[in-house]
Amino acid sequence: MPVHLSPPAPGSLKPVAGVRLGVAEAHVRKPNRKDLLVVELPAGARVAGVFTQNRFCAAPVQVCRERLGAGTPIRALVVNTGNANAGTGEDGLARARAVCTALAERLGCAPEQVLPFSTGVIMEPLPVERIVAGLPTCIAALREDAWGVAAEAIMTTDTVPKGTSRQVEVDGRRFTVTGIAKGSGMIHPNMATMLGFVATDAPVAQPLLQRLLKAVTDDSFNRVTVDGDTSTNDSFILVATGAAGGDELVDADAPAAVALQRALREVAVELAQALARDGEGATKFITIEVSGGRDRAECVRVGKAIAHSPLVKTAFFASDPNLGRLLAAIGYAGIDDLDVGTVRLWLGEVLVSAFGGPAAGYVEADAARVMREAEITVRVDLGRGTATDTVWTCDFSYDYVKINAEYRS
Amino acid sequence: MPVHLSPPAPGSLKPVAGVRLGVAEAHVRKPNRKDLLVVELPAGARVAGVFTQNRFCAAPVQVCRERLGAGTPIRALVVNTGNANAGTGEDGLARARAVCTALAERLGCAPEQVLPFSTGVIMEPLPVERIVAGLPTCIAALREDAWGVAAEAIMTTDTVPKGTSRQVEVDGRRFTVTGIAKGSGMIHPNMATMLGFVATDAPVAQPLLQRLLKAVTDDSFNRVTVDGDTSTNDSFILVATGAAGGDELVDADAPAAVALQRALREVAVELAQALARDGEGATKFITIEVSGGRDRAECVRVGKAIAHSPLVKTAFFASDPNLGRLLAAIGYAGIDDLDVGTVRLWLGEVLVSAFGGPAAGYVEADAARVMREAEITVRVDLGRGTATDTVWTCDFSYDYVKINAEYRS
Repeated sequence: MPVHLSPPAPGSLKPVAGVRLGVAEAHVRKPNRKDLLVVELPAGARVAGVFTQNRFCAAPVQVCRERLGAGTPIRALVVNTGNANAGTGEDGLARARAVCTALAERLGCAPEQVLPFSTGVIMEPLPVERIVAGLPTCIAALREDAWGVAAEAIMTTDTVPKGTSRQVEVDGRRFTVTGIAKGSGMIHPNMATMLGFVATDAPVAQPLLQRLLKAVTDDSFNRVTVDGDTSTNDSFILVATGAAGGDELVDADAPAAVALQRALREVAVELAQALARDGEGATKFITIEVSGGRDRAECVRVGKAIAHSPLVKTAFFASDPNLGRLLAAIGYAGIDDLDVGTVRLWLGEVLVSAFGGPAAGYVEADAARVMREAEITVRVDLGRGTATDTVWTCDFSYDYVKINAEYRS
Repeated sequence: MPVHLSPPAPGSLKPVAGVRLGVAEAHVRKPNRKDLLVVELPAGARVAGVFTQNRFCAAPVQVCRERLGAGTPIRALVVNTGNANAGTGEDGLARARAVCTALAERLGCAPEQVLPFSTGVIMEPLPVERIVAGLPTCIAALREDAWGVAAEAIMTTDTVPKGTSRQVEVDGRRFTVTGIAKGSGMIHPNMATMLGFVATDAPVAQPLLQRLLKAVTDDSFNRVTVDGDTSTNDSFILVATGAAGGDELVDADAPAAVALQRALREVAVELAQALARDGEGATKFITIEVSGGRDRAECVRVGKAIAHSPLVKTAFFASDPNLGRLLAAIGYAGIDDLDVGTVRLWLGEVLVSAFGGPAAGYVEADAARVMREAEITVRVDLGRGTATDTVWTCDFSYDYVKINAEYRS
């Protein structure tokens, strides 16, 4: 059961001028489900991407890196679920390229202008023929207002399609930002989530686009974890079509760029949180705010130590204020010179621990009340600096085990 | 259900001359269970210890470090279950010392000559009065042949008491090594397991004893993980009474020291493996052998990435040869310059992956056969050096969630 997460309302995903999307049921792995998406980009669109740091990165990730690295103008994305095309060696690369080539022929562009994305089972050959057979259906369906169905087509173990839009007006221009994402297991993005696509009609210079992508990713997808497993296929793509017109944004400090970054960040954070809200087996959505660190990196380490601890996550599932497990996770997060005497811990608004022990006046009933909520904020003040950061995660339930023990079967 | 693990057979835990053990039901947390152990050491016994690296280390760990650091000759250990006395601040330290003082008065030694150990729930006050009230029963029960009942008295969520002995004959002398350990959750020792006590009658100089302890710990307790959670209370204590007589062992390369180290290592490895065999909810015992690394550290990183992955552990539970999850874990273990083209992966004797893809001739039925066993060996050859290392773990089942969601309640 996802935690406070609904499908995007009809009409809530605003079209981005020039970006057209079309889906098909290609029977990549299972029949009768939307499992293939084509996104067509207008000439002149700029594209930036960040990808998994996993050394066993998937074939499509390798192809994306090559093509974006070469600076080729991208005209289309092709995304399949059901098969990750990862752990597939040279043969996997050839299959990813074959899909791109087939799409390029049908769209009238060069194969290098297509980026491939795959998600699903690892180490099985990509069924190129079935995917290629589905392309005409996708192409015939291409529309600007198809973001909702596109969000459905990229789902795997997700239970809810994930998408959101923002519009900002600045300097007399209106920019639209719309994004979709998928992922609910093997979620501990390191650079990006499993798959996220965000497009805007703002005109953005390539260096600024790359910079915005990096900043936004670090504030969103790189701060969410379901199970600590960094996928082989994580990809987050940011497209700027320029269709909104006007001067190209070059300077990150210009008001229009600041406004755009805020909108991009809101879209990316909402999508990233949606991954944890729809985490496999999730019954609780947990926000971990860490303050008082010497730098952001150590705040993130503490946040992720808490977010990754199976003992903490099962305690949330049980609504059990077993605070010792939280303290233990803070203690092993890897800050060698941490003085536990300066650490304070809150559950919701309840100060539960200070000076290495229980807080004065702490009563377990107060913490128990917080633990029964479906959305819980844990706050840690390390008491050694001014840096802060935030990590989002979910709890760990019977259903996580069930879903992952039965996946594939 | 523990995996191929039985309680020590009657008489199999050999007494170590001069070391006497006694237990009691002190009702630390629950009635009618053995939860208090006193170990009396003979005058002249040497003691070395390694402890958790968790910054939120428990009060008893702090007291042990102080007393061993001061070089005080240790005459007794006192161990309670049911309460970890961790996350308890200054008050916790006072309570740990109060228990030691009470025992010292009854044994006729100084308070500083007693080491305290606690395991159980975190962040609750240690019930000193009930523990002190149990001490006379422990003292009255002190016997050299009580290792078996001592192993029972230190259990928490363990389902099987853990202990083993070795005897070695070398240079006309016979050394006995006997050890007990406990722990089945919050198990990812960093220096030591939750609680392990090993004693020998060999005469060992203090510097060599410390060196043996470190070497043996790195080969055993520091290579096992159940859930990746490093406890606040991990302690591993090595006692050498010298009762076997003869010259003190000083040189690590002398035949007697080599023979003793081998026996210590065998005892520690068997105890460490027992923790994973009795891991919370375990149905499979997994050995991960990593070879071809540039150094041991990177072999351990890869081994632990596999051992910590909830996706890998649920696949073992399901007997599902979902090899992609293993490759993904190798890929995110943190070896930045890993060339996946040199990595090979075996499940049991079946080569399943090579050159970044499936191995030639690999058939899933072969891997499926291996996955159905209760003991499974995963072998990874990184193909970039000559270092090797081994990590042990267990699978991740519904019962892990059940045990940890219901603990305390």
